[in-house]
Amino acid sequence: MIVVMKRESAEEELGQVLKQISEAGLKGHIVHGAERTVIGVVGVVPVLPELKEMLEFAPGVEEIVPITKPYKLSSRELQPQNTVINVGGVTIGDKEMVVIAGPCAAETEKQVMDTAQAVKAAGADILRGGAFKPSTSPYHFRGLGEGGLRLLAQSARETGLPLISEVLTPEDVELVARYADILQIGARNMQNFVLLDRVGKIGKPVLLKRGMSATIQEWLLAAEYILSQGNRQVILCERGIRTFETYTRNTMDISAIPIIHKLSHLPIIADPSHATGKWYLVTPLALAAVAGGANGLMIEVHPTPDRALKDGAQSLTFENFELLMQQVAPVAAAVGRRMRASAASVPASSGG
Amino acid sequence: MIVVMKRESAEEELGQVLKQISEAGLKGHIVHGAERTVIGVVGVVPVLPELKEMLEFAPGVEEIVPITKPYKLSSRELQPQNTVINVGGVTIGDKEMVVIAGPCAAETEKQVMDTAQAVKAAGADILRGGAFKPSTSPYHFRGLGEGGLRLLAQSARETGLPLISEVLTPEDVELVARYADILQIGARNMQNFVLLDRVGKIGKPVLLKRGMSATIQEWLLAAEYILSQGNRQVILCERGIRTFETYTRNTMDISAIPIIHKLSHLPIIADPSHATGKWYLVTPLALAAVAGGANGLMIEVHPTPDRALKDGAQSLTFENFELLMQQVAPVAAAVGRRMRASAASVPASSGG
Amino acid sequence: MIVVMKRESAEEELGQVLKQISEAGLKGHIVHGAERTVIGVVGVVPVLPELKEMLEFAPGVEEIVPITKPYKLSSRELQPQNTVINVGGVTIGDKEMVVIAGPCAAETEKQVMDTAQAVKAAGADILRGGAFKPSTSPYHFRGLGEGGLRLLAQSARETGLPLISEVLTPEDVELVARYADILQIGARNMQNFVLLDRVGKIGKPVLLKRGMSATIQEWLLAAEYILSQGNRQVILCERGIRTFETYTRNTMDISAIPIIHKLSHLPIIADPSHATGKWYLVTPLALAAVAGGANGLMIEVHPTPDRALKDGAQSLTFENFELLMQQVAPVAAAVGRRMRASAASVPASSGG
Amino acid sequence: MIVVMKRESAEEELGQVLKQISEAGLKGHIVHGAERTVIGVVGVVPVLPELKEMLEFAPGVEEIVPITKPYKLSSRELQPQNTVINVGGVTIGDKEMVVIAGPCAAETEKQVMDTAQAVKAAGADILRGGAFKPSTSPYHFRGLGEGGLRLLAQSARETGLPLISEVLTPEDVELVARYADILQIGARNMQNFVLLDRVGKIGKPVLLKRGMSATIQEWLLAAEYILSQGNRQVILCERGIRTFETYTRNTMDISAIPIIHKLSHLPIIADPSHATGKWYLVTPLALAAVAGGANGLMIEVHPTPDRALKDGAQSLTFENFELLMQQVAPVAAAVGRRMRASAASVPASSGG
Repeated sequence: MIVVMKRESAEEELGQVLKQISEAGLKGHIVHGAERTVIGVVGVVPVLPELKEMLEFAPGVEEIVPITKPYKLSSRELQPQNTVINVGGVTIGDKEMVVIAGPCAAETEKQVMDTAQAVKAAGADILRGGAFKPSTSPYHFRGLGEGGLRLLAQSARETGLPLISEVLTPEDVELVARYADILQIGARNMQNFVLLDRVGKIGKPVLLKRGMSATIQEWLLAAEYILSQGNRQVILCERGIRTFETYTRNTMDISAIPIIHKLSHLPIIADPSHATGKWYLVTPLALAAVAGGANGLMIEVHPTPDRALKDGAQSLTFENFELLMQQVAPVAAAVGRRMRASAASVPASSGG
Repeated sequence: MIVVMKRESAEEELGQVLKQISEAGLKGHIVHGAERTVIGVVGVVPVLPELKEMLEFAPGVEEIVPITKPYKLSSRELQPQNTVINVGGVTIGDKEMVVIAGPCAAETEKQVMDTAQAVKAAGADILRGGAFKPSTSPYHFRGLGEGGLRLLAQSARETGLPLISEVLTPEDVELVARYADILQIGARNMQNFVLLDRVGKIGKPVLLKRGMSATIQEWLLAAEYILSQGNRQVILCERGIRTFETYTRNTMDISAIPIIHKLSHLPIIADPSHATGKWYLVTPLALAAVAGGANGLMIEVHPTPDRALKDGAQSLTFENFELLMQQVAPVAAAVGRRMRASAASVPASSGG
Repeated sequence: MIVVMKRESAEEELGQVLKQISEAGLKGHIVHGAERTVIGVVGVVPVLPELKEMLEFAPGVEEIVPITKPYKLSSRELQPQNTVINVGGVTIGDKEMVVIAGPCAAETEKQVMDTAQAVKAAGADILRGGAFKPSTSPYHFRGLGEGGLRLLAQSARETGLPLISEVLTPEDVELVARYADILQIGARNMQNFVLLDRVGKIGKPVLLKRGMSATIQEWLLAAEYILSQGNRQVILCERGIRTFETYTRNTMDISAIPIIHKLSHLPIIADPSHATGKWYLVTPLALAAVAGGANGLMIEVHPTPDRALKDGAQSLTFENFELLMQQVAPVAAAVGRRMRASAASVPASSGG
Repeated sequence: MIVVMKRESAEEELGQVLKQISEAGLKGHIVHGAERTVIGVVGVVPVLPELKEMLEFAPGVEEIVPITKPYKLSSRELQPQNTVINVGGVTIGDKEMVVIAGPCAAETEKQVMDTAQAVKAAGADILRGGAFKPSTSPYHFRGLGEGGLRLLAQSARETGLPLISEVLTPEDVELVARYADILQIGARNMQNFVLLDRVGKIGKPVLLKRGMSATIQEWLLAAEYILSQGNRQVILCERGIRTFETYTRNTMDISAIPIIHKLSHLPIIADPSHATGKWYLVTPLALAAVAGGANGLMIEVHPTPDRALKDGAQSLTFENFELLMQQVAPVAAAVGRRMRASAASVPASSGG
């Protein structure tokens, strides 16, 4: 931590700041500049994370500049090698591409089963589907609840695909964990800290979506909540951030992918369906994410998107999902990633 | 709802869209323009909120333009007169200014009690203080829990001030409601829909902070969750939105105040402490919010901000809070609002 | 400047960085921390502003943290007392409120003259009006050019009001300066550096609007362009920044007002007409800006806003402008500012 | 255009709006809904683009919803086939990838020539380099001016590469056009309308960067300025937008690439150097842009980035640029694009 003193700060203010630093068990090194004095704070800072805020308020202090990164367990500095997560034989975080696909929400037995079989046939590795759905309006469809979980789990079992499903609230963590192999934390819950704590205590992988207005640092700190409770199986998912642009629902931040790879050992996948909100943008953005280094994709698929109860406009038909898979394969190969066995059977003739 | 067809849309696509509209129990009026055909959709749309998404996907459709506002109970169209909420004799939503003040978090009995007495003396109407604190990092102070609630309730009782405190998760709603007179939903939980449902079922007022990246429409829809569960006592609180500017923690959107007054009957107050993150900006922003029409203010106060365990840099000292109250009074008067009795005794000599 | 070395940086990398600092005529002070080494760079940095970028690239360097503010002439550290600008007897930057009002664009002689007389009668101090208009679309009205300047100058002369008008391009600076008393640089031109240089060489005050996505620091650096060419008469104007919110055209950043007062000695006024784009939000935002410490206001007024060739929806009628002036006066008084003589005759009965 | 009337609008207000529409030579079709009345406005709207603003202000009107896109010449509706631009034999806009590379700014003869030869050898198609540089601070390097243009033109001639260089102000358009084959309009000048008009009148291609906070529609309207002056050779360039994220300089909006392809016939390339501001993010973002459908790339290259006078931290070394070219080739092939002849000789062994 660097403490920047004001130009006109008094000698005794400097002394006072040094005293606070020393009381916190740390050491302050003074550097007198031509215009200002700064203090380099030295020492491990485990007990008093609020020192920064205390010093910010001290008389004579202009600014505090944090140097050490605030996240630890999610940092690549702590763990240089990639975290690889194994879900029913599907690995996430290594050289293989993982494709998660399925409906936004479970609606009927037939819709879930047809979709599961279609995405499996096209080469998907994991089935997605929501039983508890966040919805901006209280008057919209909010999911089938446990009934939906049952439908999803049944289709997962029959197709042999692991299942990922969203959990909205701490009270439902155990329930969702009974049916799903991966628990999803949605963008709106990225800073639902009680929920993060709770999924940090279960023994199943967690997919943590980036909040709509979360910086990359805040995202890694949210992962840190889960990791620090003992659950080291965290998968990050970029799904677009909120900007001034209105043509897309969100702006997909592809740069987050290489940045996460640099800062963290956790795997990162991309969700172009929610990022764009428009089905015809899903494939180009999926290709971009793969080329940018994503460990996988999460794609919404629906038998009849124009009849979907939720997010139809961003869902691919079975046919379009198959086309996406055919286009993804050569791009993945071009950046040195393998599609999994199931996908390998898909002819690699490019679209473009 | 207006359906805009593509320039090159076929006659049978138009027919198909009209069929979908009609199946939803609505009527479509066709307007053939020079360049495009549009369909005006007529009828009340209670059963099928997903019609919009279905139509967006229909062949030949360029765009769907919603006309009816998606929120109902929070809309001024439904209820023209202001909602006025009474909390232990303090009214919120009428011509009187309400001032909520207190520490960010309860830390010790002395800190809470000293602060309660100081803000009461300076003219505050309601005591604020957190026992469950959201924190970006898992390694920071997260509140004293029920012990903190007890301290806060005791100070509230002794000073005669009603108490507002934040609830983070559905499981704690009843607990917090036992101690607090108003439940606060923080910005990060504005779209924690399970929590909104839960506070919609209790008989106490709820203060709903605007999410960091929430549009005004999403905010009113979040309020709609609470209102539609039967709890009509919702107070909105503008606390800054996330923008590209880094000098302040957030950018306070003062225009939200007159906009809410136009769109909704719900009271709106402003929280300049969280909006700016810097104590020396709190008073000018408080004055601006009052001049812009806010029904009240929420201000963080701490006996020794440089020693605060949470958000010290944005807290006012007792002395600065007193100065703020002295400056607020004449501005409130200038826009036709009264400070409450307790504040009336403060000499109205302006600062500026 | 602080150079933060990487955790794993080698000793010779540290030596190399120190060498670069020393070659730039500066001194590096090393602070060895528990986790990292940082270097405090000491000395005045006038010749090599690119040192920061060079060091950023150096092996072993994690990050460069600038300490000294990059703007000098606009900084309050250099000049503690407020800059006060005198335009034909109207002062900007002292305790008096300045109100600039008039049409967005000059359209006809009658429109300009009627508006000038109406705003004068209601207490405005300076006439505004555009002859060269920036327009998002090439197919929209772009102003009357020199003919418009002539109309504006004539109305200014006859009402005795100084005139402010926008200049779009360096070639027109002299032309606009022949007619106008203050030159306006619009938001889209805030980083039109050639234009800034040019207006920095004329002897007339310049009003510099904040760019739509400019940070406060970038804004002060744009002012620095003008100041560093010798023109010290710069007035800043907050007019809203671009955010995700779509209800308003822009989000007015009221906090910019006290921040500018803290960082700089330059006067700052507010333009609620462009910030909101909606006439019914102009008055509440004007009041908020005044309460927040603005030195003045810039308001669009039009005889028949529904017939305006440009920005009608954000213009006030004569009657609404008069109401605004009546509401502004008591708020200005409440924060210790005086309306000018002309406005003093307006009865100070509050609206609210 | 759709006019949405207020719920409580009077019959005579409706009549008045219809009269305004009719006076503008258009026809209004009324649709009476269950809650509101809307008017579909029919007819070509060439003469009165301000009708929208007039109606917005009319009594009884709630909202105006534009239907027709405001840009014409840049729209794919007008011209379905792609615009292909030929610059000295290099085509932009067809199935071939174009790679533009070179230094941010011309500094010395040796630096320019060495870089030109290196990028040519690695397979670049066009040389980039600035002689007039926009700089946030007046104290930073602002380019060598005409001397820089001479150096760049000489290197372009000797390597046989066409040259692109930025023009900052209308007065310099002819000068830059004497030396450069493509004129670049930078992000800060995207709405410098006088400059757009001027480059619309020259006979050379123009590369138009997206403004930092420009929506896609505003960007196409800026292109419309150039096109409507008669210059149909416009290349768009995505270079990142301003968001709340601070890790990167800007957030590259990859979705803009497929969106532009959908809305417009103009070619679009990507500039990952300016979008990220960090050299180690350039290659992943370049790959993502190519996979997302970009017609080309613009990359900053410098012999010694740590000694660059401008934007060193985002420039690639010769070696890193060569690696980038080797990684781009297979991704381009995977999406059905060819690298040009010069690049074909580069071994296509992937990196990843």
